[in-house]
Amino acid sequence: MPRTAEHTRQRILEAAYGLFRRKGFVRVGVDEIAAAAGLTKRTLYAHFESKDALLAAVLASQHDREFAAFQTLGADLAGSPEEIVTALFDKLARWSAMPGWTGSGYTRLVVELADLPGHPARAIAHRHKAAIEGYIGELLAKADVPSPADRAREIWLLAEGAMVLILIHGDRSYVDAAARAAARLVRAPVEGASGVGVALDAP
Amino acid sequence: MPRTAEHTRQRILEAAYGLFRRKGFVRVGVDEIAAAAGLTKRTLYAHFESKDALLAAVLASQHDREFAAFQTLGADLAGSPEEIVTALFDKLARWSAMPGWTGSGYTRLVVELADLPGHPARAIAHRHKAAIEGYIGELLAKADVPSPADRAREIWLLAEGAMVLILIHGDRSYVDAAARAAARLVRAPVEGASGVGVALDAP
Repeated sequence: MPRTAEHTRQRILEAAYGLFRRKGFVRVGVDEIAAAAGLTKRTLYAHFESKDALLAAVLASQHDREFAAFQTLGADLAGSPEEIVTALFDKLARWSAMPGWTGSGYTRLVVELADLPGHPARAIAHRHKAAIEGYIGELLAKADVPSPADRAREIWLLAEGAMVLILIHGDRSYVDAAARAAARLVRAPVEGASGVGVALDAP
Repeated sequence: MPRTAEHTRQRILEAAYGLFRRKGFVRVGVDEIAAAAGLTKRTLYAHFESKDALLAAVLASQHDREFAAFQTLGADLAGSPEEIVTALFDKLARWSAMPGWTGSGYTRLVVELADLPGHPARAIAHRHKAAIEGYIGELLAKADVPSPADRAREIWLLAEGAMVLILIHGDRSYVDAAARAAARLVRAPVEGASGVGVALDAP
């Protein structure tokens, strides 16, 4: 691709990302994206055949960028399970405190498209969230946490719940509640517990 | 209100509820709601001045209905903390297994309107979710669970996380993972734990 074409493509991707991030996917139109990029709609369509195709390109480039940023989390951890949990929720606390924060863009997209399970963006969101959960599992495994994949899933359930409940209640203390619960789950013994029905232990 | 006017109002509310539930709030137009109710748009506007006003009326009537249904959860519980957790997540498992399930309507609405914190529907969603969390706290208090409000919040963080992650991954086993984590949190000792940084215990 010639240099100017690549530059135009990037301008469109950045304009679309900014609008999708702020207003979600559904309420943003192609006209609005073209205007934000300072281009005609015709030029936009020369690079992306549809709003869906543009979204797929935005998500793919964001996945690479955001997952790389997420992985820096592991770089400066001394390795105790509690430090991993603290670092993770501390990151979430700082992120959710940003002005105009609207939660996870991937989650928002999936929720907006909840009735369209076959939408191509859904597959990218699935891959992104699975990569994050898998990476937390790797960090916990290195810290010798037993059943690291199970604990990573629990931590991520709490993190997704916190993001949604901060939005619902406008109350950022949900992230602290999630952090405390995650720290206890990472420590608490799993085996030999009594009083839990079979239904809870079924797969 | 005369009987026929009330009947028309109910027809509009039901048509709007069905469409919002399936497609979310943003993608549904007033024309579509009027058509689904078998009425003209003019008649619809005689009952509701805007789509926002209609949404507020739908949510208010749903809150009463759904919260009453949620409260039946407590009726047949013998009272152990584990039974409460099992009943709650069992309900969530059955609900999320329904064909075409699209997650919590209140959560979806808040996520769709994430950049509009002042939207009147947001206040209703906040009240609904706070009522559910409060009710779980009451059930746990009756079961003599220490710090029932804190445990209720953790359970609800896991439940919201499970709803979102079932949608993202199309994998209903997230509800089982959430149920197991909730059961452990209700049992696990909170005090006297070591190795958790101050940051986690801050309010």
